[in-house]
Amino acid sequence: MTTFVHRRQFMIEWGHCDPAGIVFNSRFFEYFDWGTWKLFEAALGVKPHELGPTYGIMGIPLVDSGARFIAPARFGDMVESISRVSEFRRSSFDVEHRLLVHGALAVEGKETRVWAARDPANPEKIKAQPIPPEVTARFAV
Amino acid sequence: MTTFVHRRQFMIEWGHCDPAGIVFNSRFFEYFDWGTWKLFEAALGVKPHELGPTYGIMGIPLVDSGARFIAPARFGDMVESISRVSEFRRSSFDVEHRLLVHGALAVEGKETRVWAARDPANPEKIKAQPIPPEVTARFAV
Amino acid sequence: MTTFVHRRQFMIEWGHCDPAGIVFNSRFFEYFDWGTWKLFEAALGVKPHELGPTYGIMGIPLVDSGARFIAPARFGDMVESISRVSEFRRSSFDVEHRLLVHGALAVEGKETRVWAARDPANPEKIKAQPIPPEVTARFAV
Amino acid sequence: MTTFVHRRQFMIEWGHCDPAGIVFNSRFFEYFDWGTWKLFEAALGVKPHELGPTYGIMGIPLVDSGARFIAPARFGDMVESISRVSEFRRSSFDVEHRLLVHGALAVEGKETRVWAARDPANPEKIKAQPIPPEVTARFAV
Repeated sequence: MTTFVHRRQFMIEWGHCDPAGIVFNSRFFEYFDWGTWKLFEAALGVKPHELGPTYGIMGIPLVDSGARFIAPARFGDMVESISRVSEFRRSSFDVEHRLLVHGALAVEGKETRVWAARDPANPEKIKAQPIPPEVTARFAV
Repeated sequence: MTTFVHRRQFMIEWGHCDPAGIVFNSRFFEYFDWGTWKLFEAALGVKPHELGPTYGIMGIPLVDSGARFIAPARFGDMVESISRVSEFRRSSFDVEHRLLVHGALAVEGKETRVWAARDPANPEKIKAQPIPPEVTARFAV
Repeated sequence: MTTFVHRRQFMIEWGHCDPAGIVFNSRFFEYFDWGTWKLFEAALGVKPHELGPTYGIMGIPLVDSGARFIAPARFGDMVESISRVSEFRRSSFDVEHRLLVHGALAVEGKETRVWAARDPANPEKIKAQPIPPEVTARFAV
Repeated sequence: MTTFVHRRQFMIEWGHCDPAGIVFNSRFFEYFDWGTWKLFEAALGVKPHELGPTYGIMGIPLVDSGARFIAPARFGDMVESISRVSEFRRSSFDVEHRLLVHGALAVEGKETRVWAARDPANPEKIKAQPIPPEVTARFAV
């Protein structure tokens, strides 16, 4: 496991909650996505919208995503979100997100993403690229 | 007012509703947006994603939007959505959306949109274009 | 595996897609959620908002969710969504969702949900309940 | 016009943007909603989820909403959001939201909301209530 960890805090918004008064599940996947962008910004010192241009990729598309919902999060709850890359492979990687509410683990998420560029042979398609060692090195601090 | 009217029906989803048990306001603007695409598909016989290529535009971006919330819509409610272009101008137009729940007007929306192409001098910018008469004619039936 | 299957079709909306031109991942979890409600409506003949009152539960909250993104879905694509309960346990169950675009599998989703009522001892909490046999029977046709 | 102003800053997320690369319109209405909750928290010193219990209301539901889209906001843009109550009436009020990107006005929003309680005669309905003078006084600093 890489050791670089990004933490952020945010408050659960009214419009994120459903008639049961708890966060609607799809919103957690928005939190995970943003958590990954902010993690990379923190590790690499590159703003989210400059990640592609900086490294010559089109992005870091998701290929797998999952969440375990352990305790509810409600309107007004402060969330501490803790994100890290749990594994780098040649051209893909896993990101773990842990969301704490009142100090207790409420949601665990996991994303698998690809370091991807446009396929030169067909710009409609994307192609996995080797993750540069200078990128993975920044997560190994 | 043009006379072409598009009607569609859909059910209010759980994830569209807030802790008060009613549709969260931003969702209505999603309904309006989709109502406009479906209105144009019905009037022109052109699928939403083919509207741009068919007419040489980048799209029909919003410049103004508004809604009046008269009665709540709840999880499971069937909505009848009635959309029409209320006015065509040279390069912009207004769309009206009326959402009925149990036969009564629940929400009224209004969008102002522009018939827009990429600016040839600066592809980062968009430029309003005259709406082709063959387009407006299809709404005058 | 239960054999009752629910199929529905819908078109990918503009507002569901991201700057890469493909559906933003959290939207798929909205599709899964609605797919489950419609599956239960089809199997039980009970409208989504009447499921709770009909069976004396507060709902069917998610405890686990995941997706595999195999091929992109784009603005205007028609999606065929195929949902089924893959397993009923005493008080929880798994739902599988398969989304096809142009006839090919684009996304696979899986949800684990609980048949849950308010805890009589503490209405702030929920408590898993045995799933009634008349419910599971309707999925075994 | 009341003089109390709330400012907040946030970055435009990937999942908030559409295939044109700009914020999808419904997201602005999410920003407005949250801007209003944070404005009231700043003015009253009451957390969003405690506003109802503190003042004996069910909430501050929207009855009218509108936006003017002047310039686009893109993935990674920092937004400065400036919110204020532009008018208090007996039991309703208007909130103005101004969103600046790179120092220039990008979006103007306006909401009309009601200070509302459950109707004692019918808890399914809500009833406008006089806004307490101690509330309006906090916006007049």
